[in-house]
Amino acid sequence: MYRPEIKVLDCTIRDGGLMNKWDFSKEMVRDVFAKLAEAGLDYVELGYRADKKMFSPDEFGPWRFCDEEDLREVAFECDTKISVMCDVGRTDYDTFIPASESIIKMYRVATYVKDIDKAIHMIRHLKGLGYEVTCNIMAVSTNLEPDLDEALDQLAQTNVDVVYLVDSFGYFYSEQIHYLTDKYMQRLPGKTLGIHCHNNQQLAFANTVEGIIKGINYVDGSIYGMGRAAGNCTTELLLGFLKNPKFNLAPVLELAEKYFAQLKKDFRWGYELPYMITGILNKHPRPGLAFVNEAIGGDDKSVADFYRKMIAVEDID
Amino acid sequence: MYRPEIKVLDCTIRDGGLMNKWDFSKEMVRDVFAKLAEAGLDYVELGYRADKKMFSPDEFGPWRFCDEEDLREVAFECDTKISVMCDVGRTDYDTFIPASESIIKMYRVATYVKDIDKAIHMIRHLKGLGYEVTCNIMAVSTNLEPDLDEALDQLAQTNVDVVYLVDSFGYFYSEQIHYLTDKYMQRLPGKTLGIHCHNNQQLAFANTVEGIIKGINYVDGSIYGMGRAAGNCTTELLLGFLKNPKFNLAPVLELAEKYFAQLKKDFRWGYELPYMITGILNKHPRPGLAFVNEAIGGDDKSVADFYRKMIAVEDID
Repeated sequence: MYRPEIKVLDCTIRDGGLMNKWDFSKEMVRDVFAKLAEAGLDYVELGYRADKKMFSPDEFGPWRFCDEEDLREVAFECDTKISVMCDVGRTDYDTFIPASESIIKMYRVATYVKDIDKAIHMIRHLKGLGYEVTCNIMAVSTNLEPDLDEALDQLAQTNVDVVYLVDSFGYFYSEQIHYLTDKYMQRLPGKTLGIHCHNNQQLAFANTVEGIIKGINYVDGSIYGMGRAAGNCTTELLLGFLKNPKFNLAPVLELAEKYFAQLKKDFRWGYELPYMITGILNKHPRPGLAFVNEAIGGDDKSVADFYRKMIAVEDID
Repeated sequence: MYRPEIKVLDCTIRDGGLMNKWDFSKEMVRDVFAKLAEAGLDYVELGYRADKKMFSPDEFGPWRFCDEEDLREVAFECDTKISVMCDVGRTDYDTFIPASESIIKMYRVATYVKDIDKAIHMIRHLKGLGYEVTCNIMAVSTNLEPDLDEALDQLAQTNVDVVYLVDSFGYFYSEQIHYLTDKYMQRLPGKTLGIHCHNNQQLAFANTVEGIIKGINYVDGSIYGMGRAAGNCTTELLLGFLKNPKFNLAPVLELAEKYFAQLKKDFRWGYELPYMITGILNKHPRPGLAFVNEAIGGDDKSVADFYRKMIAVEDID
């Protein structure tokens, strides 16, 4: 597949940081950014802009906050743009400076459908400062459809640049991706669409490809799939699929083997049975993460029992 | 998805045996068969029928040969049927007995396009003995299309029960699965189709689902994906997708955690970068297997160098 409009964003440090509290050294992040730039990535997302009144820098690494000076220590201005994610309700507006003074080129506003008005307020503020701005509507597999429709209609009235279809729980099959992409396109005329998938059912890459086939142009990957729980579509598979000659696979492979093969053993993202179970049940991966963390700690619980407990919880709902 | 015609075949012992020389104990295989029967699987494939004049029982476990008496020690007649695979050119016809005297219900004849005449000879012989018989045409991603067309046309003239679309190298995206399924349907009128995928690009499950959507009714899975190199579509994901109430997920999860989580650490099938590389290059996983085996042995080679070498080999082709 080669369509020049397709932009690849690597979110390894941002989404991967959810597994290790963003405890990546500056030396490593500098290497990651440089090699991803060499690989031809369009965007590299280096973390969240979280409110330090809500989250302590003593507990989390610098990529939870993405201070301008930290970013400048690890990245540089080039064809690969720097992106930072903001969670609605967890971000201090006072930390935003004009785009002309920042190394950041794009902010991605992450929101639930219920908070869409707050998200639009933040989008307008960031657009006013001169940034590229996206809206990433999370966990849409759990929304009633009229609520999602209304949120999309509201976004259609804004100057947001990109709206992302997000499969937070790794629940969707290709049929749902097709259906929702059609919906987003119909309700967001003229807007660019993005897609961000999780790999609970080993479908993150497949669903991203389905999004691309349907016309989605902003796609997320992470190195070796590092991301919360089951992780993401892998950047290396995306570059293997996309035929744009500007992409180079080798630097991504170098990063994968240099850092992420070992990190995956330590933090166990990717296809694990507890994440598969939360995915097929359309549930937040939280109980799966607790199970895996207990297993890493030596606890010898049964996955089959975990499944039985999860479907029992379903019965009570 | 619920279509009563869909039959699920678990090929863990057969395809997984390619990773450990079929060195599964009888006690374990007995447990696997009993729990897969409890899970409601339609078929369980317990190995190959390989010629003992070509492969030594000293070197390989019993599931490389599937002697009738070995099968009767681990399995029993029930709604879950026993399947055995035969490679064309590696099977001794003298070992076949009439279906009425055998615990085996189905033989799957595995062939390359170039050996289709030998395959058809074996299919006719086995049908004559009263078995259900399938033809699994391997590595079709490497065939010239007129050659594949001719093989399918020949199969259309036989009484083979099922013809499988096989992605041996894990090369196909959904677009190729759709295209080839249409082709198989068109050239094999009235035949049932099956699909067997490998997971080099994390697409084995996704492509199996695409096959189901297109009307394929025989689908292969293996527990925790155990199979050669990148492994297969996982049986647990298939059962999660299929809504036929006869399927139970819990026994498969029990097997996965009891045996296959540890085996995966020992033998490293699944998503590994060397297998991803052979997949995107449409190559046999052999060099990837050699790389991973050397890594298990402590060799510290670079995956990025492996990739550079593989694309250099491409240039020479």
